[in-house]
Amino acid sequence: MNKLLIVGTVAFDAIETPFGKTDKILGGAGTYIGLSASHFKLQSAIVSVVGDDFPQEYLDLLTDKNIDISGLEVVKGGKTFFWSGRYHNDLNSRDTLDTQLNVLADFQPKVPQNFKTADVVMLGNLHPLVQSSVLDQMDVKPKLVVLDTMNFWMDCALPELLDVIKRIDVITINDEEARQLSGEYSLVKAAAKIHTMGPEYVVIKKGEHGALLFHDHKIFFAPALPLEEVFDPTGAGDTFAGGFAGYITQSENVSFENMKSAIIYGSNLASFCVEKFGTEKMVDLEKEEVIARLQQFKSLTQFDIEI
Amino acid sequence: MNKLLIVGTVAFDAIETPFGKTDKILGGAGTYIGLSASHFKLQSAIVSVVGDDFPQEYLDLLTDKNIDISGLEVVKGGKTFFWSGRYHNDLNSRDTLDTQLNVLADFQPKVPQNFKTADVVMLGNLHPLVQSSVLDQMDVKPKLVVLDTMNFWMDCALPELLDVIKRIDVITINDEEARQLSGEYSLVKAAAKIHTMGPEYVVIKKGEHGALLFHDHKIFFAPALPLEEVFDPTGAGDTFAGGFAGYITQSENVSFENMKSAIIYGSNLASFCVEKFGTEKMVDLEKEEVIARLQQFKSLTQFDIEI
Repeated sequence: MNKLLIVGTVAFDAIETPFGKTDKILGGAGTYIGLSASHFKLQSAIVSVVGDDFPQEYLDLLTDKNIDISGLEVVKGGKTFFWSGRYHNDLNSRDTLDTQLNVLADFQPKVPQNFKTADVVMLGNLHPLVQSSVLDQMDVKPKLVVLDTMNFWMDCALPELLDVIKRIDVITINDEEARQLSGEYSLVKAAAKIHTMGPEYVVIKKGEHGALLFHDHKIFFAPALPLEEVFDPTGAGDTFAGGFAGYITQSENVSFENMKSAIIYGSNLASFCVEKFGTEKMVDLEKEEVIARLQQFKSLTQFDIEI
Repeated sequence: MNKLLIVGTVAFDAIETPFGKTDKILGGAGTYIGLSASHFKLQSAIVSVVGDDFPQEYLDLLTDKNIDISGLEVVKGGKTFFWSGRYHNDLNSRDTLDTQLNVLADFQPKVPQNFKTADVVMLGNLHPLVQSSVLDQMDVKPKLVVLDTMNFWMDCALPELLDVIKRIDVITINDEEARQLSGEYSLVKAAAKIHTMGPEYVVIKKGEHGALLFHDHKIFFAPALPLEEVFDPTGAGDTFAGGFAGYITQSENVSFENMKSAIIYGSNLASFCVEKFGTEKMVDLEKEEVIARLQQFKSLTQFDIEI
């Protein structure tokens, strides 16, 4: 089986939405990416760090999903990264209520030996220096490196971000971030400019409005599935990225055509993520549900016009 | 050839966008619908009203597109409806600078005798009583009645709007209007509620984010084509509706499957409309350009996943 190396936070989240609130629950980009990628035939590992306040049951949950956690450092006496946020009524925007970096502040990623030859590397949203450090540790050049990032790093660590962006194949960012990074309002122009920074493939996430894949003057669009109810958007972008990277890893095919299927899978998995609080739905998600929803994506988008 | 009856404003617009501004130019929902529908094999007529300040060249432009204007009343000594607006930098929102109803204030639509048996009726955005009056004049029940409206009528003439909505088959409104009309935030729930008000088909327009077609628990999504530059969004929604109604009229097929193609055509034509000021692009648009862009819509959305 092909190998997927995931780097990203494993954390505690406390979430408030118009539908309720949670205490500290399992969260973090690495967690969502790992759970999402676990729907594919592959070997995966998460490189991350937690404190010894992190419950064994959460670690077990990851290993139960066949995720290798030998690269998940547990810092004795340390506290796990904690994020707390409150969503506005439309669920499209949120306020961060609290961020405690804790053990993440001094995180030095260590890639497990048997994942230094991973086929695909998924660099979740983290300091660009951490992302670079992971690439430095690879023994062979991966077939594909996917990077997720956010506006925070554009504000605080732009040179480092631009350095790591040069080394990757696919970047996934949201529309506002694409505009910020490129200085272009039009997403078509933004993607063209980001191409020149390094990545051959640019994925622009538009939340409930779907995602666009840009490559070499070609564009593909995956809608978000219209849902009766969105319960909690936390982790949707990471779940999307995990589905994308997981599908590519399984299929061993880094063509544009195959990436179309990958972002449909990403959108598919993300549509489940938002239906319950936190990771709740992703933990229980069955293969049959995913397959059935793929059929919905087909019905939603496929048409037949004779040209 | 099948007949399409169009009711909608024929007007003067003055538009400001970040890219420039125009003096009074040809505008109005009926104009955009008519120009868009003229891309299909059909007979069309516009029912509307203008003042005698309306230039002959604009009337000629409509007849050159084979649009019957015998139902376009020219009021002696009257002034044509005038709208002026300024778009914000993101082009997603605009301020109305001036609205002069003029001859529109007393508009009594008169359907030409030979269009009282039209196959399809497209009721452009107007007072709901005007829309109802057109339906009252039909000699036979049309195969399909499509209605466009806006939040203004929900605020000022809701009972009359609800009355005409009961009599139609397809409603096209934007996402915010769908939420206002239904009281539901989720567009899936909003569409379900609007179904119960009458229309079997609900089309929700999301501007640059595409359009959704809802019918009997089925959903189809047509993206907007990602463009390098959007110059002027004026008329895009009407052009979309005109393409939708025009395609249905030509194809004589009111099935859900065929409506998928119709909203792709609508999105296709709307993508041209926004590339130049006002009606400029629509007036010159060639069949070959439309066909080429259909291919782009296919590439943008069609994927192949074995399930």
